[in-house]
Amino acid sequence: MANSQYEVVKQFERENYLLQDTHIVIRVDGRGFHRFTKNYDFSKPNDERALKLMNKAAHCVMESIPDTVLAYGDSDEYSFLLRKDTDLFERREAKLVSTFVSSFTSYYIFYWNDYFVDKKLNLDDGLPTFDGRAVLYPNIKRIRQYFSWRQVDCHINNLYNTTFWTLVIKGGLTPQDAENKLMGTFAKDKNEILFSEFGINYNNEPEIFKKGTVIVRESNEVENVSDALNRTSLEEQNTGAVDAPLSLRQKERRAKKRRKMKIQEHHADIIGDTFWHERSYLFE
Amino acid sequence: MANSQYEVVKQFERENYLLQDTHIVIRVDGRGFHRFTKNYDFSKPNDERALKLMNKAAHCVMESIPDTVLAYGDSDEYSFLLRKDTDLFERREAKLVSTFVSSFTSYYIFYWNDYFVDKKLNLDDGLPTFDGRAVLYPNIKRIRQYFSWRQVDCHINNLYNTTFWTLVIKGGLTPQDAENKLMGTFAKDKNEILFSEFGINYNNEPEIFKKGTVIVRESNEVENVSDALNRTSLEEQNTGAVDAPLSLRQKERRAKKRRKMKIQEHHADIIGDTFWHERSYLFE
Amino acid sequence: MANSQYEVVKQFERENYLLQDTHIVIRVDGRGFHRFTKNYDFSKPNDERALKLMNKAAHCVMESIPDTVLAYGDSDEYSFLLRKDTDLFERREAKLVSTFVSSFTSYYIFYWNDYFVDKKLNLDDGLPTFDGRAVLYPNIKRIRQYFSWRQVDCHINNLYNTTFWTLVIKGGLTPQDAENKLMGTFAKDKNEILFSEFGINYNNEPEIFKKGTVIVRESNEVENVSDALNRTSLEEQNTGAVDAPLSLRQKERRAKKRRKMKIQEHHADIIGDTFWHERSYLFE
Amino acid sequence: MANSQYEVVKQFERENYLLQDTHIVIRVDGRGFHRFTKNYDFSKPNDERALKLMNKAAHCVMESIPDTVLAYGDSDEYSFLLRKDTDLFERREAKLVSTFVSSFTSYYIFYWNDYFVDKKLNLDDGLPTFDGRAVLYPNIKRIRQYFSWRQVDCHINNLYNTTFWTLVIKGGLTPQDAENKLMGTFAKDKNEILFSEFGINYNNEPEIFKKGTVIVRESNEVENVSDALNRTSLEEQNTGAVDAPLSLRQKERRAKKRRKMKIQEHHADIIGDTFWHERSYLFE
Repeated sequence: MANSQYEVVKQFERENYLLQDTHIVIRVDGRGFHRFTKNYDFSKPNDERALKLMNKAAHCVMESIPDTVLAYGDSDEYSFLLRKDTDLFERREAKLVSTFVSSFTSYYIFYWNDYFVDKKLNLDDGLPTFDGRAVLYPNIKRIRQYFSWRQVDCHINNLYNTTFWTLVIKGGLTPQDAENKLMGTFAKDKNEILFSEFGINYNNEPEIFKKGTVIVRESNEVENVSDALNRTSLEEQNTGAVDAPLSLRQKERRAKKRRKMKIQEHHADIIGDTFWHERSYLFE
Repeated sequence: MANSQYEVVKQFERENYLLQDTHIVIRVDGRGFHRFTKNYDFSKPNDERALKLMNKAAHCVMESIPDTVLAYGDSDEYSFLLRKDTDLFERREAKLVSTFVSSFTSYYIFYWNDYFVDKKLNLDDGLPTFDGRAVLYPNIKRIRQYFSWRQVDCHINNLYNTTFWTLVIKGGLTPQDAENKLMGTFAKDKNEILFSEFGINYNNEPEIFKKGTVIVRESNEVENVSDALNRTSLEEQNTGAVDAPLSLRQKERRAKKRRKMKIQEHHADIIGDTFWHERSYLFE
Repeated sequence: MANSQYEVVKQFERENYLLQDTHIVIRVDGRGFHRFTKNYDFSKPNDERALKLMNKAAHCVMESIPDTVLAYGDSDEYSFLLRKDTDLFERREAKLVSTFVSSFTSYYIFYWNDYFVDKKLNLDDGLPTFDGRAVLYPNIKRIRQYFSWRQVDCHINNLYNTTFWTLVIKGGLTPQDAENKLMGTFAKDKNEILFSEFGINYNNEPEIFKKGTVIVRESNEVENVSDALNRTSLEEQNTGAVDAPLSLRQKERRAKKRRKMKIQEHHADIIGDTFWHERSYLFE
Repeated sequence: MANSQYEVVKQFERENYLLQDTHIVIRVDGRGFHRFTKNYDFSKPNDERALKLMNKAAHCVMESIPDTVLAYGDSDEYSFLLRKDTDLFERREAKLVSTFVSSFTSYYIFYWNDYFVDKKLNLDDGLPTFDGRAVLYPNIKRIRQYFSWRQVDCHINNLYNTTFWTLVIKGGLTPQDAENKLMGTFAKDKNEILFSEFGINYNNEPEIFKKGTVIVRESNEVENVSDALNRTSLEEQNTGAVDAPLSLRQKERRAKKRRKMKIQEHHADIIGDTFWHERSYLFE
């Protein structure tokens, strides 16, 4: 179709193409969820419906964007890991971020009624919205540190919130008094308060609260883990040889394999080695 | 709260702070709307419910983000213009783009049932999602060219689509035959086909189809336009004096003034001077 | 010529295309000049040879890169202003910055012997090197503020240095004592010290020390200044019309006009309006 | 010292911090060397003085910037590899690029007379200048591909140039006839022309012409190569553990070790594994 003279202004558009061969993480965060969760009477310290809605939305995003190999979330945030060699949207940052954020928002609202059966979304209490960002990590070590960071964060926040709300709800303290009491305490102090004052063993709290949720494409094939790792390290480390580009057939086989993978949720430790060593295919 | 050793990876985050004193346009686009509009049986060439839902969502976004002074949309896209001196999210690109896209998505889905009363959103037909981008324009001339570009685009597409679908629906041509017939035609040829073959005067088509929709904060105060323009040009052109920073009181007065402005929709020409000369306050 | 399989890595290159219609300033700074000036026994507080060598290098850079319309420098730095609509190197940042820095370095070393006749460059005392950066300013007001910033900086530093070195050289103070004496003083205090203790009227110091040097292409044609400004503001402010692209002939005429312009040095005030109002053609 | 109101414009400066944990290559290229080499009568196809001057400048740059671990150059270009974990100038792109380019220019001009004893630099023939860029590579494989790319490029260009200039100088062809004769030829054809027509065995050409020059910090310590590689791969691949930050003492020991390393030049193959396997410490 004809274009107008005004199209000259298209030249002002800029694209940020994210560095190739580098892992892309896209993190989606709830906007103003402090107020939002109050308005919709979320249970404190954790609202299981809300967490499951987050997981549902993330699960759907993973299904709709096949290059996403793993997602981790807790509270009002979710991080998505893309295949290192993804060429989705030519790796354009704004396109990637906005697509994840919009899809996540869309599923979150669509499924709201399934999880919050007695409280409809309404304008007075506000609609849920999310913002997002893309971060690049150049190697697996950093990717693992990233997800460790998020899971430790989940733990720190959850232990604090569990103790705080126990003090308020069961202990009858004012929020201010609870905050003062917790100021400067360490993890063991909070564990002690929970146990000695309320008979709560933090370790017995639900895993979804303590560890958050990791959603991952599961390979059906058993593979020799150390072989896989050696292969990767050989590829990445020892030689500058250019890989033969994958044939169309190989690409199709890989894509098919990925489509076949089941997307599964875990509330597992992702800081230690076990989770990752069992899923070395994630970084192929 | 305590932070973990893993927080080192936060250093990999990068922000793109959009250049100050420069107009920011954020454009939101429907993703895969070709298929989406088919699945939901949108009327062709234009679905008035769909356009009004887009307008509703854009209107709500403008209300929720006060630094947005104007929005223009047609078909499945909307462009938002921010105040040149906005400091929203410190002008961080990813934050701005993702917030607009998420808010737009949120309102679009929330209001869907008000406009599509007999066709609920469902997974088989797909959920609506949008992507977005930010573009910088350094002066008013370029901003006006940008919105002219979008409105001319609306016109070109609408004239084509109107003729195409008239040929198909009223003329009984196959889509392929209609496409062939229109190949290489100019605007006057399409006008002629509509008029001589179907008795349709394109000029009488609804303005919302031909011109799209511009949503704008309307000042209640009448002001001398040429004064305002001279003032602006003086400020921008002739002197390097540093403005006294606005006092808190002045800032509050300005913000209050903006909140008081009514947000109004027009299907007006935004290519010529009239629309802009009547709203010089937009660029204050 | 044939290309190798390894050329795939060329895809990792990134370009930052500087926003169009925006003024580009490239600032070149001496690296480690504190030590460099000591090693080569530069006169304190100002070494006229050194300043003139800086000016010579900047002058040559302006001659060799015609899109540079103005340069301002003092001490060990120089800022170059490019035509707003320059398309030099397609406005690629790294190319622009590295070219200016390399050219400046090249001329500075080439002409060294003309200004420092009795002290050759040598490795023991170190070779002069410079770093650089590009900064974008979206309008004339900001450009003028930028150059005002640099000239005020020149003034502040020169008044301090003049007083400091007078105290040390003529007053016999140790550097530490001089520093202590000046701590917390205002401009008028320094003027007073110079005048009452040493009989020096700062106003009579050489203009090159107090104001730095501005190098500018001078138009030979007299033009009606207010006409020019009005024209610019009309172009920039009031209309979104797309300019007819310049014909080849017009372009050549403009380029020829620029080549004809003389490059001249001044030690003039560039904070007030006069300098700029007399040279409105700089922003055409 | 006091700052002026105009310092507000400093906020328009932008920094591009190059991604951490990623290899930085800075490539410096001669500007307009086609004309420059003609003006200064460089020998064709290769001028040994010019290559040695390039090597000298690169050598000095490596000495003056200790975080440079390797450099490769041929013709009028040089690529510098920085330590992956360098924090030089906080990894700011413009600062890095401009510093390398300025230093290279500075040494090139300073040492000119040592290599071109009978032809002084002069304005009529032009001064040498260079431009530069930074490129990021996320792993060793890509780094090796990068240097393979440059060395293959050296080979392709040199074989062509050697044959071309032999045809012109010894064969008496016009440049145009030589170009026509070489059009569409492969490496073996050029080898054949050199050998059968001029008795030149290309393999006997000087290594500096065929392979370019690699300058590298040489470790004095023998280390078990496969150990080193395994260690690296273990570090990078298998664990997300955060390294204990190096103690000050360890840092000093490392820096001292680097300073002790000799900087040596080779005209060696850097495409195969041998060169790199013998220098695994480069990627520590």
